Amino acid sequence: MNRVFVPSLDLVPRVAAGETAAIARLMARAESGSEEVRAALGEVYRGAGRAHLIGVTGPPGSGKSTLVGRLIGRLRALDRRVAVVAVDPSSPYSGGAILGDRLRMNAHSEDPGVFIRSLATGGAGGGLSRAALDLGDILDVAGFDAVIFETVGVGQDEVDVARASHTTIVVSAPGLGDGIQAIKAGILEVADVHVVSKADRPDAAATLADLAIMLDRQPARPDGWRVPALGVSSVAGDGLDTLVETLDRHRTAFAGPAGEARRAGIAAFRIARTADTLLRERFATLPPDDAERRVAARGLDPYAAAARRVRAFMGEDDV
Amino acid sequence: MNRVFVPSLDLVPRVAAGETAAIARLMARAESGSEEVRAALGEVYRGAGRAHLIGVTGPPGSGKSTLVGRLIGRLRALDRRVAVVAVDPSSPYSGGAILGDRLRMNAHSEDPGVFIRSLATGGAGGGLSRAALDLGDILDVAGFDAVIFETVGVGQDEVDVARASHTTIVVSAPGLGDGIQAIKAGILEVADVHVVSKADRPDAAATLADLAIMLDRQPARPDGWRVPALGVSSVAGDGLDTLVETLDRHRTAFAGPAGEARRAGIAAFRIARTADTLLRERFATLPPDDAERRVAARGLDPYAAAARRVRAFMGEDDV
Repeated sequence: MNRVFVPSLDLVPRVAAGETAAIARLMARAESGSEEVRAALGEVYRGAGRAHLIGVTGPPGSGKSTLVGRLIGRLRALDRRVAVVAVDPSSPYSGGAILGDRLRMNAHSEDPGVFIRSLATGGAGGGLSRAALDLGDILDVAGFDAVIFETVGVGQDEVDVARASHTTIVVSAPGLGDGIQAIKAGILEVADVHVVSKADRPDAAATLADLAIMLDRQPARPDGWRVPALGVSSVAGDGLDTLVETLDRHRTAFAGPAGEARRAGIAAFRIARTADTLLRERFATLPPDDAERRVAARGLDPYAAAARRVRAFMGEDDV
Repeated sequence: MNRVFVPSLDLVPRVAAGETAAIARLMARAESGSEEVRAALGEVYRGAGRAHLIGVTGPPGSGKSTLVGRLIGRLRALDRRVAVVAVDPSSPYSGGAILGDRLRMNAHSEDPGVFIRSLATGGAGGGLSRAALDLGDILDVAGFDAVIFETVGVGQDEVDVARASHTTIVVSAPGLGDGIQAIKAGILEVADVHVVSKADRPDAAATLADLAIMLDRQPARPDGWRVPALGVSSVAGDGLDTLVETLDRHRTAFAGPAGEARRAGIAAFRIARTADTLLRERFATLPPDDAERRVAARGLDPYAAAARRVRAFMGEDDV
């Protein structure tokens, strides 16, 4: 029925009033990243800043989605409105994202206090995280108290989303072996809270102990936050209250002046990511040359060809 | 002892002569992506084109590394020199890459016909894949017959590496569940060969049958290649001969004019990725402005701030 095009800017007050149809429509446009939606996203950004942005990441199989499902339930019990933006780096293969939606919709689809959206379209160089953060702003303005960014946890997108969240949870499953341990060791840098999922399993205690040792070896953080490692059993529900308390404690600690550096970092990151997108778009409008054929034949190399294109783009004289 | 700086261009003939120290040195410089190394990488690229570039991707736990290890053994038995570039998208967490090196070095570290290198440093927007492809060129010029790019298979980097390989293998483990099935469904687009690992397990036959059904549903490829699904048992060694034969068959089929479109696509992709890197570097030299603080305070939005920076970069007038 939506035959009349409603300008994105006109959707913003309707989003702020919590109209689901307007939210969905603006989100779809934000995801597509069209030029028309940008002024609206700018206005949305300037009106946002109330929601708690929570990043949840971890390797495949760590139980992230189950944890997020339980976290939704716990936050709803506290009467908070919760939105989830699932960032799936396998998105060129859209199946993963669609499946994720279907699975999780079951539990909360009847509840207007819950909004779940998977990002199914990627794009090189931060396109995915740029869209995720725009969606987070929309949900923030729409009145959600918490926006959870869920990512798969092995690529650039989740580091990005972690960098743009107020609080980042890294989820590990017990006993996932050495490879996962290694990833975990590195992920220490982005975690504000570590969660060991499936804490009802007998090997969870050992994983928690490993994590505690790793955390002890880390230098003190400049912001003074001590990163905790919590066990959570999504089956039994154990540890969820402590997790919610910890999230709130982190949020409160950095809501004021103590969080200034982090907020400035988030702002710098968002500007840089958006500038990348804009620059790449403009670069793509450059007319094609014959470089492709010559590079394929190895008469020209990609560095020389790329340098020539960049000079042409910048309007420099030797082309 | 290397106190005297050898210009990268002077290393190229030594790389072509197969000098291990020169190869390692040029690779380290290629990975760092310094300006000095670019002319040398250009020359390397123009001299490359002999090696078979094989992409191996698949989700974590699919048995990729074990398969690559067995594939190395089989290709060595045919007296071919094999290099592996492992692209680890968890690279901001360098632990993963380091661990991978250590594990695999054991079997082949004494064999000069094998070279294994993990890329431990990432960088946003294709930096990782750009470096991987440069390393592939170096190994090609150094006389390796096959260069295997191994990636973890859930992010942009592996799609990229698949796009830049002559032949791409997608590895799946039997019975990894619905989530993995979904990724697999999407990955169909990049696979030239599907391998179901752990083919000795009883559930492997069902996974192979699922794959065969999915492949049957795909439209015929414009290049006429029929994507096979092969079972390989890395434990028993079953299926490895068929895999090597299939790789050779794909290589032969597309070595001549039939591969022209693919080679042009690879060239276009490499130019685009390199141009991204160059453009981003130049953009980063722009002096900072006060946007960060204003965006953090929500008086300015990331779109307006980024647009202003891009205009300043392009030397446009309103700034």
